[in-house]
Amino acid sequence: MDFLHTYAVIMAGGGGTRLWPVSRKESPKQLLPLLGQETLFQSTVNRLKNLFPPERILVVTVEEQAREMKNQAPDIPEENYLIEPAPRGTASVVGLAAMVVQKRDPKASMAILPSDHFIRNVDLFHYLLKAAFEVAEDQYLVTLGITPTMPSTAYGYIQQGMPVDGDYKYPVYTVKSFKEKPNEETAQQLLRKGDHSWNSGMFIWRTDVIMNEIHKQMPGLGSALDEIRAVWGTDRQAEVLNTVWPNLKNETVDYGIMEKAERVAVLPAGGLGWSDVGSWSSLFEVLLPDMNGNIATNAALHLAHDTHNTLIYGGGERLIVTIGVDDMVIVDSGDALLICKTDQSQRVKEVVEHLKKHRQVTFL
Amino acid sequence: MDFLHTYAVIMAGGGGTRLWPVSRKESPKQLLPLLGQETLFQSTVNRLKNLFPPERILVVTVEEQAREMKNQAPDIPEENYLIEPAPRGTASVVGLAAMVVQKRDPKASMAILPSDHFIRNVDLFHYLLKAAFEVAEDQYLVTLGITPTMPSTAYGYIQQGMPVDGDYKYPVYTVKSFKEKPNEETAQQLLRKGDHSWNSGMFIWRTDVIMNEIHKQMPGLGSALDEIRAVWGTDRQAEVLNTVWPNLKNETVDYGIMEKAERVAVLPAGGLGWSDVGSWSSLFEVLLPDMNGNIATNAALHLAHDTHNTLIYGGGERLIVTIGVDDMVIVDSGDALLICKTDQSQRVKEVVEHLKKHRQVTFL
Repeated sequence: MDFLHTYAVIMAGGGGTRLWPVSRKESPKQLLPLLGQETLFQSTVNRLKNLFPPERILVVTVEEQAREMKNQAPDIPEENYLIEPAPRGTASVVGLAAMVVQKRDPKASMAILPSDHFIRNVDLFHYLLKAAFEVAEDQYLVTLGITPTMPSTAYGYIQQGMPVDGDYKYPVYTVKSFKEKPNEETAQQLLRKGDHSWNSGMFIWRTDVIMNEIHKQMPGLGSALDEIRAVWGTDRQAEVLNTVWPNLKNETVDYGIMEKAERVAVLPAGGLGWSDVGSWSSLFEVLLPDMNGNIATNAALHLAHDTHNTLIYGGGERLIVTIGVDDMVIVDSGDALLICKTDQSQRVKEVVEHLKKHRQVTFL
Repeated sequence: MDFLHTYAVIMAGGGGTRLWPVSRKESPKQLLPLLGQETLFQSTVNRLKNLFPPERILVVTVEEQAREMKNQAPDIPEENYLIEPAPRGTASVVGLAAMVVQKRDPKASMAILPSDHFIRNVDLFHYLLKAAFEVAEDQYLVTLGITPTMPSTAYGYIQQGMPVDGDYKYPVYTVKSFKEKPNEETAQQLLRKGDHSWNSGMFIWRTDVIMNEIHKQMPGLGSALDEIRAVWGTDRQAEVLNTVWPNLKNETVDYGIMEKAERVAVLPAGGLGWSDVGSWSSLFEVLLPDMNGNIATNAALHLAHDTHNTLIYGGGERLIVTIGVDDMVIVDSGDALLICKTDQSQRVKEVVEHLKKHRQVTFL
């Protein structure tokens, strides 16, 4: 395989709330330097550069985020930023990207990649992507699974079936089933079974294969994409996109396409050092704590006295002193301060819901 | 007793560090509205007003704090503010105040009162002070003891002896011994004995009696006071005070006078609702927590989610969110943020020492 027709599509429209108060509507997680110098989006782009020239990296995002993304990744050509008129779920995003890429290059394959994940082992990631493209050549819808390291209730799971026959450089399995985020007990069971991976949201396929699948599984989306394709690149592009898009069914690619498709394969990846950076506690998986287990990141001045396994984030020029503090997350972010037991950090979203409900817009 | 010759002297020169980062060199504890609207100094003054006219309330303080005190308590006449040229311990303060009061009114008795304590039961306080003045008439050096409610290691203790015979309105005992701050084990023992009170630093005596005792126990201080008295009210007052003062021995009234005096009495006061507000954890004794045990004071916006027995102080217009937090003190104070396990709040002074050692003057 010569990898001359492989494209990367970064999905970057989300505005997660689980890293509140740092991630906000106006400054979503992927645009923040959460782990140091680079933003998660920049890391995602840089991680792809060895594998794809910038003209074959596309970004699908929303209007509010596009400008900042272009600032952060100026190498990617202007026309490779695709703007969703409004969020209509990942199925629509995948469809739009597949249509655009296929129109440019009818032989194209593409990898769909989230913009806000962390991957420690970039070499392995490259190896896996290449392997996945080879499997995709054989008309599979391929997904990268993450070998679980704990019974997480924060991820969906993929159950593998039989190995896929073929001369591939990495083990590949058919997919037996996709599973929603489980409860604690079920997560324990899935982990013990050994044949389940976390659903990472990374997909690899040929554009013709995914377009066929869209027409089959989501004919409404399929014909909408045909309509947009007919005017894409003309002066009617924006008008048609803006007319058609709001009427699309809001659907995920997992539920709308993957679960019903027949030729689906998974590469279960262990040792990738992957994290979705989905809560403050996940920073303990991603960054190296000091010998007391503490992490101070984006924090200018931190004085830890009898403090262990505690994350200090932010604070600007302020002095942050902790005394007798264990297993906490402390986030000091301009107009808001979060102090949270680490194992409760998923509950940040309950606070954000509360703020939304009570229209505390300045803090959202 | 007609109470026409009774004076109150508020000692207000200290600059405690145990309520850092709110109390600083420039804004010591007594000048802060720690418990709500009034500062501790204002509460101290107001608590005395029913018992003493303002012209019989004196304040001994240092130059840096005098102006703010005059702002906070404008009823007290200008000439009742006595300025220590430099801190030389409470024995010197007591001596200066006794000399000045006695010079104004040779028949005067005086109560020495700290400026930064909390007393819930003000009526009982008034009753005790009156009783103490009556005992002091009989030439006793009287101290108010606080009946311990826990084996505190933060206070000195007073061991009572036999009851003092006399027609007093409250039980009075001779003092058998003064004890330094004990360790935990000793504190437990003292509490079990039942004959020990906390040393509150509140003293009541006749000015002639204390002056005699000073001349006897601390002759150096005695003759210095004679020298100052000779020029007090003349244009040489400042010159002599500034010359004599720096050479005084730095000594507490407890160690320099009370421990060696013979005619010492204690009124052990239970139910006064007293606190020296000596650490952040003491605010739990002083303020009423909500039904989850939380206190938010001087805090504009606090959102407590699964949070218990936690103090939130400050934050200005910031939103402070706590999730899964128990038994913590959180103090958000402009340029510094303190997060401390409540039972470790005495260790704030170790942090302040560290900052001093490393000359972090902006945070002191």
